[in-house]
Amino acid sequence: MERQLHEIPLEEALDRWFSELEFAGALERMEVEEIPTVQAVGRVTAAPVVAQISSPHFYQAATDGLAVRSTATFAATRESPVKLKLGPEGVFVDNGSALPDGFDAVVPMHEIRLVSTEVVQVDRPSAPWRNVRPTGEDLAAREVILPRDHRVGPLELGAMLAGGVSLVKVYRQPRVAILPLGSHLVAAGATPGVGQMIDSNSPILAALVAELGALPRRLPVVAERTEEVREALLMALVDHDLVIVVAGPSYGTALVAHLLSEVGECILNGVALKPGHSLATGRVQGKPVLGLPFYPVSTFLTYKLFARPVLERKMAIPVSSPMSEPAELAVSICSPAGVEELLRVKLGIVGGRTVAVPISRGAALLMSLVRADGLVQVSAHTEELAAGMPVPVQRLTPVRPIEGNIILLGTHDITYEVINGQLMRNHPELTLFTAATGGKRGLEALKRGLCHLAAMHMFDEDEGEYNIPHVRRADFPVVLVNLFSREMGLVVAAGNPKGIQGLADLTRPGVQFINRQLGSGTRMLMEYHLRQLKLDTGKIRGFAQEAYTHMSAAAAVSSGAADAGLGIPATAKASRLDFVPCFTERLDLAIPKKFFNLFAIQGLLQVIRSSNFKREATAHLAGYDFRQAGTVLWESP
Amino acid sequence: MERQLHEIPLEEALDRWFSELEFAGALERMEVEEIPTVQAVGRVTAAPVVAQISSPHFYQAATDGLAVRSTATFAATRESPVKLKLGPEGVFVDNGSALPDGFDAVVPMHEIRLVSTEVVQVDRPSAPWRNVRPTGEDLAAREVILPRDHRVGPLELGAMLAGGVSLVKVYRQPRVAILPLGSHLVAAGATPGVGQMIDSNSPILAALVAELGALPRRLPVVAERTEEVREALLMALVDHDLVIVVAGPSYGTALVAHLLSEVGECILNGVALKPGHSLATGRVQGKPVLGLPFYPVSTFLTYKLFARPVLERKMAIPVSSPMSEPAELAVSICSPAGVEELLRVKLGIVGGRTVAVPISRGAALLMSLVRADGLVQVSAHTEELAAGMPVPVQRLTPVRPIEGNIILLGTHDITYEVINGQLMRNHPELTLFTAATGGKRGLEALKRGLCHLAAMHMFDEDEGEYNIPHVRRADFPVVLVNLFSREMGLVVAAGNPKGIQGLADLTRPGVQFINRQLGSGTRMLMEYHLRQLKLDTGKIRGFAQEAYTHMSAAAAVSSGAADAGLGIPATAKASRLDFVPCFTERLDLAIPKKFFNLFAIQGLLQVIRSSNFKREATAHLAGYDFRQAGTVLWESP
Repeated sequence: MERQLHEIPLEEALDRWFSELEFAGALERMEVEEIPTVQAVGRVTAAPVVAQISSPHFYQAATDGLAVRSTATFAATRESPVKLKLGPEGVFVDNGSALPDGFDAVVPMHEIRLVSTEVVQVDRPSAPWRNVRPTGEDLAAREVILPRDHRVGPLELGAMLAGGVSLVKVYRQPRVAILPLGSHLVAAGATPGVGQMIDSNSPILAALVAELGALPRRLPVVAERTEEVREALLMALVDHDLVIVVAGPSYGTALVAHLLSEVGECILNGVALKPGHSLATGRVQGKPVLGLPFYPVSTFLTYKLFARPVLERKMAIPVSSPMSEPAELAVSICSPAGVEELLRVKLGIVGGRTVAVPISRGAALLMSLVRADGLVQVSAHTEELAAGMPVPVQRLTPVRPIEGNIILLGTHDITYEVINGQLMRNHPELTLFTAATGGKRGLEALKRGLCHLAAMHMFDEDEGEYNIPHVRRADFPVVLVNLFSREMGLVVAAGNPKGIQGLADLTRPGVQFINRQLGSGTRMLMEYHLRQLKLDTGKIRGFAQEAYTHMSAAAAVSSGAADAGLGIPATAKASRLDFVPCFTERLDLAIPKKFFNLFAIQGLLQVIRSSNFKREATAHLAGYDFRQAGTVLWESP
Repeated sequence: MERQLHEIPLEEALDRWFSELEFAGALERMEVEEIPTVQAVGRVTAAPVVAQISSPHFYQAATDGLAVRSTATFAATRESPVKLKLGPEGVFVDNGSALPDGFDAVVPMHEIRLVSTEVVQVDRPSAPWRNVRPTGEDLAAREVILPRDHRVGPLELGAMLAGGVSLVKVYRQPRVAILPLGSHLVAAGATPGVGQMIDSNSPILAALVAELGALPRRLPVVAERTEEVREALLMALVDHDLVIVVAGPSYGTALVAHLLSEVGECILNGVALKPGHSLATGRVQGKPVLGLPFYPVSTFLTYKLFARPVLERKMAIPVSSPMSEPAELAVSICSPAGVEELLRVKLGIVGGRTVAVPISRGAALLMSLVRADGLVQVSAHTEELAAGMPVPVQRLTPVRPIEGNIILLGTHDITYEVINGQLMRNHPELTLFTAATGGKRGLEALKRGLCHLAAMHMFDEDEGEYNIPHVRRADFPVVLVNLFSREMGLVVAAGNPKGIQGLADLTRPGVQFINRQLGSGTRMLMEYHLRQLKLDTGKIRGFAQEAYTHMSAAAAVSSGAADAGLGIPATAKASRLDFVPCFTERLDLAIPKKFFNLFAIQGLLQVIRSSNFKREATAHLAGYDFRQAGTVLWESP
């Protein structure tokens, strides 16, 4: 079985897929069935719906009052009212009731004076059809209530019923088979063993299909063996209109592509799309079959691009071209050339502008989709998008409000998770969303209006002081608020076998170090202290080897690749390593003065200053000091 | 029973209703229930959902390749590759499978050279955790997957299942009773007799409640008798969380207000809102009860304003404040002072601007809601909104595309319905929407860019010519296209008992005339012909009595109030009256040159010029001549 994908550009792939299906008649509307109107909500009309009776189907009083012959009132004036005999000349009617035969107007109650129990008088003329709803005012018999291809909502339902339509012709709902492959999959609810994964793709796809108004059926998991998959696919084709195979991890969509060529026609095998490049589609017995990649984000995005429009066409509902709205990228991103990339982004409103912050990009990261507010499609011709660039964002359904998203760029820290937990309890409408750009870029983005807050632990060697010199030099009106101080130091193997007591020990022969990347605050700080201690970095083995996060530095120590890395007590604890404190650092939040009094920012500060937060954070984060959290340390003059 | 409503301003009514419910705890979230996660789509979380297992819950290969110990590869270069023994030093793994114990990186397939069946070589180092998804990369055990009050969609479902969450705490769905009153109501499907109406309100409300995610139950129709309604209401309260009574026509919501005061507390009895002023709300046994007015448009709008937010609060879903978008009113409208009015509008895009055209305003006109694209709220302090004024439009759900709406202002004519029927067959994406403003205002609106087309039959007495002199004087680049010519004349009683042969007979004693309104094209034309015939309008009885449409003139003749009215053969035929031809008139369409080549306009002209249209229209419309339909009669130089 050939595993090689033929990655053709996305646009070409979409065109080839839909035009081949169209040519083969596989996008034709579903056949027509007649169903009781009361069951028609959500269904799509397959023919114009025509009123069977008028509404109202009689002349109807439109107010409470006296039904009269209008001609009998023509002479009425205040000076000489007209007397009418109840019964032959006037009949009391209720709003909504039928006008008695021979009458053509209704005098409202308040214009009537009772003269006796049998006679009333009116003092102004009533024109013909005054306060009368004529037959068919709302709907005339034989009038078209709904055109063909119209989705029935609650109001349309009511109009059809009012028009006496008790049966309605609609398109049959497509039946969609969902066939997961791979013996490594266990059904939701079971406990997976090592190497086993819970099948979350099938329930997601079933819910997406159902949401559209089609009928999903989840088939049992089939092992990735050609014979078994072929049999399951052919069985699925028997009573379904579309088959979605979720590829397994061993052969991926190659198995689907192979089978498509064998029992039908393979149309696509690979597309230059990230995530989602591994995709196989084709036609068997005139029916569309899709093999979607197995990592959930890829599954979802390829479903959206390649499967959903097929269903929409067959159901005669508008093919969703999700409206895009403009946003500005908060951080710059790189994207591989030659591949369309779909970035998941979180959105926020910063000073009236919508900014988009990319979320992590792995194909397996289902949570990144749950957390995303929208998607940004990066063209295959684009290799870099700079911070501040305008990009179109497709909102994900259901559209969530983004007004409560607080965008923080700069230094990443685990504390943000504790803050979010507290926000969830105290201000559920607020969410802190962060992207790790480092303090320097965060501060630049803040100045350009691309985020609400910048987090930083930037030491200034000249002044021997954290953060304040940097925000002062950034030269825009800002308030600096402390979040925490914490111990920094060396993460070493459990039990500290090399007996490392401080930075000086790094120069010892036999000690392998792993550094943090150039420009990171942690590294700057260490180099400052190395200079203070007059230590020669040339003597440190591994000084040029860089890790990009605390965690990856710790991982290098865990694996034995290094004896010491820069880190914090929390990382050491999480990795079951030991920690040697060397110096302290301070993380502050820079907030533009113009945002300081926003509800969202004040809500955030309220949490940071609360004793609940300080208690929880201190308990969870070894070596952190939250005593000054929320204190304003400096503000622009 | 007091029938008098206490119409308080809308804002005050909303405030009183929701704050009294809030004070009484009747807006609290529903109680919590635990359900299987797989059934949770559409439900709302009642507590944060926490991952039970990590995803992945083991170290997972992120590509097909060879699992290795990274340290064993550190020395590898192209010049001196490292050899690894399959088994102890390297194990082939599939993308997605578990990393064997003791290994910490995966070398991708294409970097591996097979030396023998037992030995492979690699020529570059692999860093620790290369191509490895660490445990919990997507979701860590005990991580919060969803906060409280989060509605579960397909992706959220997948994330919960991937996190090993098989049961989830959600709010119980509110049960909503819908109780229709009035012995005049028959259930949908039955054939209504005179004075009987099909109950379309209950199915509409049930569908709206279900759409929101609550559980509707339609109760049987109850006659408007106090005892029976009291009993039905108390029964409904037993196992429902909210009761919606749809008022009957006899007592309206007064009966509901009366019962609320008797068995509970009446909070509102009337609101200054049009349509929808008759509304009664209150509380019984701590549960909200609403009496909604019985005309469908009022029912829908009061449900939307007063009932839906209660359910949204109880279900912990965001209270819908439908986003409004700006539009310009295409025609001026008057609105009663002191009453908030909700205008149903059709939207169209005219030269890049969105224009809103009000649809007919009756409370009973369900079809007006089906046809509407949105609602415009006219403040109680506004009495007139001028054409061209900016107004905020709330789109109705589901949002329909408005690009295919062709807005025609000017003279109304029944031909437009035939055109729409033909459009439906040939260009289903196009709809002609018309508002009767008269030709003069239509032309003004066209010049101001408030519509796509203006229809007119405006005679110019000086030039003895239709329409062309008027568009020439309007002085903007326009194309004039014929729609039809038709016979105009007098509509007289069946059998023509007064022997009316022409306009001259109107001056005969004993002949009662009903005129059209001053300024209408029909009237102008008649006055021209009267002058040509040198007839004295002073001798025409009823010359000052005005009807606003052909139909109402015919209705006056039908009722015997008049002997003759201006009209056309089609109206006479529809009303089973006779017709006396007197002169012909020509209806043309004025189209701005800049719109002439729009797809929508060309599609419309294609229909008007088709023989299908001409055949159908000629067959249906007696006295109409479509031979020139679609011909360009004049265009601006």
